[in-house]
Amino acid sequence: MSHGYETGRLNLPFVGISTFAKSPYQPDWSAIDADVAILGAPFDAGTQWRAGARFGPRGIREASTLFSFGHNGAYDHEDDVTYLDGVRIVDIGDADIIHTDTVGSHANIEAGVRAILAAGALPVVLGGDHSINIPCINAFSEQEPVHLVQFDAHLDFVDERHGVRFGHGNPMRRAAEKPWVTGLSQFGIRNVSSTAKEGYDAARAMGSDILSVRQIRALGVAAVLERVPAGERYYLSIDIDGFDPSIAPGTGTPSHGGFLYYEVLELIAGLAARGRIVGIDLVEVAPDYDPSGVTSILAAQILLNAIGRIFHPGEVTPP
Amino acid sequence: MSHGYETGRLNLPFVGISTFAKSPYQPDWSAIDADVAILGAPFDAGTQWRAGARFGPRGIREASTLFSFGHNGAYDHEDDVTYLDGVRIVDIGDADIIHTDTVGSHANIEAGVRAILAAGALPVVLGGDHSINIPCINAFSEQEPVHLVQFDAHLDFVDERHGVRFGHGNPMRRAAEKPWVTGLSQFGIRNVSSTAKEGYDAARAMGSDILSVRQIRALGVAAVLERVPAGERYYLSIDIDGFDPSIAPGTGTPSHGGFLYYEVLELIAGLAARGRIVGIDLVEVAPDYDPSGVTSILAAQILLNAIGRIFHPGEVTPP
Amino acid sequence: MSHGYETGRLNLPFVGISTFAKSPYQPDWSAIDADVAILGAPFDAGTQWRAGARFGPRGIREASTLFSFGHNGAYDHEDDVTYLDGVRIVDIGDADIIHTDTVGSHANIEAGVRAILAAGALPVVLGGDHSINIPCINAFSEQEPVHLVQFDAHLDFVDERHGVRFGHGNPMRRAAEKPWVTGLSQFGIRNVSSTAKEGYDAARAMGSDILSVRQIRALGVAAVLERVPAGERYYLSIDIDGFDPSIAPGTGTPSHGGFLYYEVLELIAGLAARGRIVGIDLVEVAPDYDPSGVTSILAAQILLNAIGRIFHPGEVTPP
Amino acid sequence: MSHGYETGRLNLPFVGISTFAKSPYQPDWSAIDADVAILGAPFDAGTQWRAGARFGPRGIREASTLFSFGHNGAYDHEDDVTYLDGVRIVDIGDADIIHTDTVGSHANIEAGVRAILAAGALPVVLGGDHSINIPCINAFSEQEPVHLVQFDAHLDFVDERHGVRFGHGNPMRRAAEKPWVTGLSQFGIRNVSSTAKEGYDAARAMGSDILSVRQIRALGVAAVLERVPAGERYYLSIDIDGFDPSIAPGTGTPSHGGFLYYEVLELIAGLAARGRIVGIDLVEVAPDYDPSGVTSILAAQILLNAIGRIFHPGEVTPP
Amino acid sequence: MSHGYETGRLNLPFVGISTFAKSPYQPDWSAIDADVAILGAPFDAGTQWRAGARFGPRGIREASTLFSFGHNGAYDHEDDVTYLDGVRIVDIGDADIIHTDTVGSHANIEAGVRAILAAGALPVVLGGDHSINIPCINAFSEQEPVHLVQFDAHLDFVDERHGVRFGHGNPMRRAAEKPWVTGLSQFGIRNVSSTAKEGYDAARAMGSDILSVRQIRALGVAAVLERVPAGERYYLSIDIDGFDPSIAPGTGTPSHGGFLYYEVLELIAGLAARGRIVGIDLVEVAPDYDPSGVTSILAAQILLNAIGRIFHPGEVTPP
Amino acid sequence: MSHGYETGRLNLPFVGISTFAKSPYQPDWSAIDADVAILGAPFDAGTQWRAGARFGPRGIREASTLFSFGHNGAYDHEDDVTYLDGVRIVDIGDADIIHTDTVGSHANIEAGVRAILAAGALPVVLGGDHSINIPCINAFSEQEPVHLVQFDAHLDFVDERHGVRFGHGNPMRRAAEKPWVTGLSQFGIRNVSSTAKEGYDAARAMGSDILSVRQIRALGVAAVLERVPAGERYYLSIDIDGFDPSIAPGTGTPSHGGFLYYEVLELIAGLAARGRIVGIDLVEVAPDYDPSGVTSILAAQILLNAIGRIFHPGEVTPP
Repeated sequence: MSHGYETGRLNLPFVGISTFAKSPYQPDWSAIDADVAILGAPFDAGTQWRAGARFGPRGIREASTLFSFGHNGAYDHEDDVTYLDGVRIVDIGDADIIHTDTVGSHANIEAGVRAILAAGALPVVLGGDHSINIPCINAFSEQEPVHLVQFDAHLDFVDERHGVRFGHGNPMRRAAEKPWVTGLSQFGIRNVSSTAKEGYDAARAMGSDILSVRQIRALGVAAVLERVPAGERYYLSIDIDGFDPSIAPGTGTPSHGGFLYYEVLELIAGLAARGRIVGIDLVEVAPDYDPSGVTSILAAQILLNAIGRIFHPGEVTPP
Repeated sequence: MSHGYETGRLNLPFVGISTFAKSPYQPDWSAIDADVAILGAPFDAGTQWRAGARFGPRGIREASTLFSFGHNGAYDHEDDVTYLDGVRIVDIGDADIIHTDTVGSHANIEAGVRAILAAGALPVVLGGDHSINIPCINAFSEQEPVHLVQFDAHLDFVDERHGVRFGHGNPMRRAAEKPWVTGLSQFGIRNVSSTAKEGYDAARAMGSDILSVRQIRALGVAAVLERVPAGERYYLSIDIDGFDPSIAPGTGTPSHGGFLYYEVLELIAGLAARGRIVGIDLVEVAPDYDPSGVTSILAAQILLNAIGRIFHPGEVTPP
Repeated sequence: MSHGYETGRLNLPFVGISTFAKSPYQPDWSAIDADVAILGAPFDAGTQWRAGARFGPRGIREASTLFSFGHNGAYDHEDDVTYLDGVRIVDIGDADIIHTDTVGSHANIEAGVRAILAAGALPVVLGGDHSINIPCINAFSEQEPVHLVQFDAHLDFVDERHGVRFGHGNPMRRAAEKPWVTGLSQFGIRNVSSTAKEGYDAARAMGSDILSVRQIRALGVAAVLERVPAGERYYLSIDIDGFDPSIAPGTGTPSHGGFLYYEVLELIAGLAARGRIVGIDLVEVAPDYDPSGVTSILAAQILLNAIGRIFHPGEVTPP
Repeated sequence: MSHGYETGRLNLPFVGISTFAKSPYQPDWSAIDADVAILGAPFDAGTQWRAGARFGPRGIREASTLFSFGHNGAYDHEDDVTYLDGVRIVDIGDADIIHTDTVGSHANIEAGVRAILAAGALPVVLGGDHSINIPCINAFSEQEPVHLVQFDAHLDFVDERHGVRFGHGNPMRRAAEKPWVTGLSQFGIRNVSSTAKEGYDAARAMGSDILSVRQIRALGVAAVLERVPAGERYYLSIDIDGFDPSIAPGTGTPSHGGFLYYEVLELIAGLAARGRIVGIDLVEVAPDYDPSGVTSILAAQILLNAIGRIFHPGEVTPP
Repeated sequence: MSHGYETGRLNLPFVGISTFAKSPYQPDWSAIDADVAILGAPFDAGTQWRAGARFGPRGIREASTLFSFGHNGAYDHEDDVTYLDGVRIVDIGDADIIHTDTVGSHANIEAGVRAILAAGALPVVLGGDHSINIPCINAFSEQEPVHLVQFDAHLDFVDERHGVRFGHGNPMRRAAEKPWVTGLSQFGIRNVSSTAKEGYDAARAMGSDILSVRQIRALGVAAVLERVPAGERYYLSIDIDGFDPSIAPGTGTPSHGGFLYYEVLELIAGLAARGRIVGIDLVEVAPDYDPSGVTSILAAQILLNAIGRIFHPGEVTPP
Repeated sequence: MSHGYETGRLNLPFVGISTFAKSPYQPDWSAIDADVAILGAPFDAGTQWRAGARFGPRGIREASTLFSFGHNGAYDHEDDVTYLDGVRIVDIGDADIIHTDTVGSHANIEAGVRAILAAGALPVVLGGDHSINIPCINAFSEQEPVHLVQFDAHLDFVDERHGVRFGHGNPMRRAAEKPWVTGLSQFGIRNVSSTAKEGYDAARAMGSDILSVRQIRALGVAAVLERVPAGERYYLSIDIDGFDPSIAPGTGTPSHGGFLYYEVLELIAGLAARGRIVGIDLVEVAPDYDPSGVTSILAAQILLNAIGRIFHPGEVTPP
């Protein structure tokens, strides 16, 4: 195995242009040639409390350079696997955002995801607020059906209020309406929320499996995975506020009592082994509320490890 | 059930004047008509390290608006209960504080709590440093006796040093001296503290039950509750530094190894079922040390959930 | 003259609910009875760089409490005038904002300004981004004509791009189109901007007088005032980024080389003497970028002093 | 001239214990042997808005290490003088502060200043809030009379409110009452203040010369100095909020329109030449509101340059 | 037992010069007379991501004053022991650092540790980045052999890249090469790291025992301690990023999934009972990334508790 | 003139990968084809106080996107010129930095500048600390001679101390030694500095013209320009601390009394008209000390305006 720093550059993390994981930048969306394509979706007009997720893609990209040493891949001594070795990642930049225009901005995001899918790459979309999940799911309309797995503090299952149907409280309801979404697993949902009781009732009626963090801890990773249909195509929607505010303070609506790092990583690793993860969005990182940078680091760390496990699914099992 | 946003306003969290939970503001203390009355006690001259708790009431009030959607109550899917539905909360503003005058400021706080008690409402006092517990307890002199349950990193049981008897290291000693305080449960006490060994000896001699976080975890929620006299009237004094610095950095004297969110909520829910909670103060939130806002959010979240459980005590049991 | 603290409360700045200048809160918009009415317009979906102006109203209100001692009015020893003595200010809260819906949010802001005008009070609107000037101006459609005086780094004269006509780069163009806006004085405009050359040409063609900070300094206050039509009704639109980033860092798009405090105050005092100021908006304060709070303090300080001079126009002249 | 780094240590600013200017630490107040003695007075219970000045001494000490290279003295190329060469500075630590006890804390500060004066050294006191000027002035009761020169945004001339006579709004009134204070020059006073009109009237009646920043700029340095009695012993009380918030955001009550750095330095240099500066306090630095550290740096920079000019009064004249 | 505040000063935490735990300052390295000597090593040019550890010693010293009440020792009610009673600590200041010169700076650090060892005191070195472990270990060349116990997220076992052998990725490799280092226990190592697989292989080949946080939790404290050779002399190297980012955000390279406070304290207490701890360094605290101060507080808290347990090894056992 | 947003993307500032001014990224240094090439030099081991300038290039790049609307060029209404129209800028990324190795890192920076010069483009280098000026100047060894114009608070003319010759206090001395540097104009130098009197003497002896900010204000722009040799090739070295801390707090060693924005821009515009600017470095931006982002914005704003004026030298004159 030869490492990048053996020839040429030492390439320390703080050096160089901030693409995701210092991957090549491909602004031409018709020329994507990769296993994984990163798309930024810096839209945050769907928020109901603190904005700032528009800077999520930049924050996550910069944090991701911390993990982008010149090694070929990322060695994990617990699994004894060098993840990411040989996985081709490209960064295709951001979808164009039009201020004051939610529908237009969402359409541009959808176009980006469609371009990635057309190229046969795994789309990994960096939000933006959770409303950007709506165009991401729309882009799968011509794909094989998917089961949506959400990590989140909030149910996000509001149908409509004051005419709003495409805000960050609505995406899971919008997804559940799609014929190509076969079901939802909603993990981490807890406490006070923007969704009222009727939303929970509707979600359950439309087939959602809703589990809180405490419930998931009581069940254990294996039992939780058992509740997800096996052998499916999974779409992951990771709201960073699914994590505990202690490690993800940099978000619009922190909610105490959330997931810790390995709890989510073990579930994702399990899903990667149980079926095929075909799309990811990670949303609601707001760097302005993250003075120590740990939230952006968390986002980058979970994404890189998730991608690693997706492309080495048979080699490890969750501990 | 009809929600506020069905008529009139969407009322997003970031919109509007910051009273606690966007409850009505009642500056006339002779006209309190509510189940719960919120009083700010922005006094922080009792601190021995970092000040700033004077902005605690404003910080908590603003954070509380996050949880103040137009729903009728707060639905908790784990308990399948819509808490707070029908609970009438008013915010009566702050006690008047006189800089350089501890005794005068405390007297004004005491007057506020007495006004709430006279109105038959539950007093919920937002500190301010922990010395404000002293006037809160004083205000119960004409009430039926109470058992004091403290959540805190520090024992706060110093009798007197250099003449200081009303600082934030003294309140539990002052409370223990009161005839109408029948006992103390001091939960979360740990590690290095402003109280020396003599203080611990005195506390135990005066009837305190002192438990650290590790001891409480070893015992479990149910066993801890068993140590609290059953069927009593409880007064809760929640020092935010009883929580772990990971979720409550915004306080004067953070102490590592503290409580997590649900540990405290489960104990409070248990107390609400085991007896009657008749007064609450939550102290030592210092927003200037809380750049991500998670400490103020924690304070608002625990208070709203505590109030919810107090008014639905028979409906749920701790998990 | 009797002061508030002579009876009752000392009422220190950090004590109490944060309405603007601790003025009475009047949520009933049909019952406004005051000389001045404060309306929050926490809308920031019109921004093209950093958001966060949605917390402008709260930030300005809290900062304004610093200036709200129990005095009857604010004594200025340079002018030997006690401003604000007897001026009746009310805070009517915020316009309802609907996320993802610019038109609906703007309509709610317009309704608030119309209510204030109907009550015969001076509307002072706290943004929010500069797009909220659009509904403010709309609300004057039934009033006598106004001359608009803008303090800003940016011309904000974009007609339309990608369909956007109501973002924070458009308001001055929208205003110039209105029959009831007789002209514009655009002060502080400088350097790189979101408006291209065509916008400047259009502004001049539509009657704008555009002056940079350097040009205003070269002319002097008196000469600048001479360029504003005398004896008119003036509407002031104060973008906080018209001020220098040294004193107004807490905004979306700081632009170096801006106004200092007294430069703007002297111009406003001059306008108050030269005609009648009939409406004010102050926009683009973003507290999350203002860690020391000086931007919110600046906004509160300029507004309170402006109101003071409006109601004592004949008593002082700019130095 | 030999420099410290020529022998032994390079002694970079960030290296070593933070005494003021890395001067020797002398905790024994009966053994002060120096030209200048630094005393910390970390008391901030006199504040009416933001606290935090208790950390002023530590903040200023740490910032002062930036200017403490191993040079013998500080060369100023504009004056062509190496200031501070041979001036013996010691740091005697902090006065003991007793929380909740203003009178006791003030007494301890007074004792420290008396010890410095007894040793024949120049006292330089680092606040704490402006109330600490009260014990500083008290300590001069047995000295030859002094003329007090204040740099401040606020008049601080409140006599008494709600029983408060020793808060940070009272010191200049307390000073004016002393027989050994022959007069006051109050520079920088501006805009909205905690002192009402009566306070200004009283100050003028008791002999104060009150000048705003704008008035001082209009007069010029020389004319301002002419208004200060010549050949006197001057006591300087520098409230950091006399400076503009642009360079001194880190303080409790920033007030826009303040002094810039050289404006104050030129006035102090002029005073050092016009008479004898016999005592200094610098107050209201609150590092928690100073995220970039520029306020503490300003305090250290003005103090070191002031001390330099005091000990080289004949060598330079203000530009 | 007599406490400091019974005579003389109350000595609140925020008062006084910031030496470690307010211990006496001894700048003369030939005159160390103490049980424990604190040395600052403010060198951070060995970092590969965020710098700032140069301010670690100052940050830790200031935080340590929080735990430096006038008590004689620190009473821990869980162990019923008053730790630190009678332990003589001195602070010998910082090693001289020469910018752009790693070898020279390291030599100065080594000289400091050698001076402490020559005086028979326990060296406790405050980093700086982890490269400062290299001179610390060098200083033990004439001592009895030691077993190195590392708490860290990263293996730090890179041999050489681009000529770099003394950066913060190299220290454990450098230590393993020393004849007087008999073995390494590397605790907390996890996830993506600057060390590639070859480094892990080399570490294991050279005798390292590598355990992740999850592995240590699965084993339990007692079983982990069993893997450390009994009865040895232990050198502790504590990288603050061994702790979880939730409690240690203020560091250069936070890594999620780390240790909590008591996990490390229990292991250290166990080591203190199992053998003799003869040296400690605590590295990578970067206060500029620690806006709430919790990381510096953690460093001070773990060090003071570790020192306490070292000098009372037989009195307690880990819970 | 056609604008970018007329076809394709609106391209708001917060959207997209952060290259300088969103210019094309050219990682192949042998294929530079542009008028201007941007090189990052993220080296900060030369600092003597606060580090963090390693993140300067990323901070400036991100801030520069604020000024990168889809316009063709930047219209300045005061000059009535659309600057930058048609100027081809590329971003060639960063020089490789090797931690603990100053000489090696500097060599990599020199290689980058040489590549730009070989391509015939104007090198604009983003520091990093001021030591990176040393390799920049080295790279001009084969070019026609240059006159160096420095904007800085500090003289940076130390020859050698403790063996250090390539730190951030040495660059102007290193430059003055070069045969191809014909002279130095050192503007903004003031107050306490790391350079002792001997350094000033040496600088003057070697031909430097040293002017403070106050001296430059007294002279006026035109007179200052007269002191710079006319018709020369100028190399600009802009230390951001030449600016006032009020607008440039985000730097290692802020020094009060510095330049304001237009003062420097007018001098640069004058130099662009008086001769030919053939190289620029802008150093010491440390984003971690710049919580509001105004320092990075200042750096981007002055660079973009400087480049604009360099390529339109005959069209405007300083006001």
